[in-house]
Amino acid sequence: MPYISLEAHLPGVTGLLEYRQDTAAPLREVTQILLRGPSTLSEAERELIATIVSHRNECVYCSTSHTAAANAFLGEEETAALMKKDIATAPVTDKMKALLTIASQVQQSGKAVTPAAIDAAKAAGATELELHDTVMIAALFSFYNRYVDGLATIAPTDPEYYNSMAQRLKEKGYYRPQQGYDHLKGKG
Amino acid sequence: MPYISLEAHLPGVTGLLEYRQDTAAPLREVTQILLRGPSTLSEAERELIATIVSHRNECVYCSTSHTAAANAFLGEEETAALMKKDIATAPVTDKMKALLTIASQVQQSGKAVTPAAIDAAKAAGATELELHDTVMIAALFSFYNRYVDGLATIAPTDPEYYNSMAQRLKEKGYYRPQQGYDHLKGKG
Repeated sequence: MPYISLEAHLPGVTGLLEYRQDTAAPLREVTQILLRGPSTLSEAERELIATIVSHRNECVYCSTSHTAAANAFLGEEETAALMKKDIATAPVTDKMKALLTIASQVQQSGKAVTPAAIDAAKAAGATELELHDTVMIAALFSFYNRYVDGLATIAPTDPEYYNSMAQRLKEKGYYRPQQGYDHLKGKG
Repeated sequence: MPYISLEAHLPGVTGLLEYRQDTAAPLREVTQILLRGPSTLSEAERELIATIVSHRNECVYCSTSHTAAANAFLGEEETAALMKKDIATAPVTDKMKALLTIASQVQQSGKAVTPAAIDAAKAAGATELELHDTVMIAALFSFYNRYVDGLATIAPTDPEYYNSMAQRLKEKGYYRPQQGYDHLKGKG
């Protein structure tokens, strides 16, 4: 049960974003720009960065949602699953292994990011903007994971919820649905 | 030395916000709304929440900046200093002690926030919106601390830098200065 009164049909971050829409609007916008805007990292790669941080923070709602989003962009479920088990042997590029390692360090602390990890990413071809965006995405999900779990929001157990969420995140991105969420009432 | 090429005269978060202004704009806005918008928590109280998280994350730039901002609003330096040593004996209200305790739990992890801490805050008169905002501010600074230290930005050692920053944060808030930061060139 959440620590504050949220709409019962809106689990995880969705109830929080509806609870305070004035802060939600710019939050949705920074997320949209960072995860869906023009980038040399694919949407799938950026969702994998969000996933590894959420997974390491054991935020079930965020980890399941962004795993599903990464899967939707990739068209398969193996990559995210293997990445969560072990970055070093995951079927991603060497550059992505290096960036996911940096994201995992950010999950622990900003101070945990090592020059060696940065050098490895640069050696694998990562640009400065990719380094910036990796750290920023990892930090942003350090925010979201705490926002979602710090207020004890509910994580649905039905996989269909996350598949539906992933399709919306893939097709519409992070903006608030134009119709809001009233159509979900009674389904929560 | 930062891990990416930032303007030498812009230490800490300021160089990052100038580096990628498209993500910075909504980030500045959510921070402004949350820390300066209408609230039953004073600006000083919200800066103390930002300070305790930054302090526990050992983010020198953020901790020093927001300590200075809290001091500027309070007109004294004792409260923030004592709070950083021990929340329980700090010269703040019982409600603020409970909210700062929740913020400290968020700094560790969203999952670290306990029902007992929430109950204690409610018993001390905290509203649901105050609980929401406390968790959100603490999570937001979990983001900023990682963004600032994860890219190894520089923290100035001159106290005058932070006093000047605090005056701007008090008087102008979190928006980008209209003139940008060019006037600081050569002073970094």
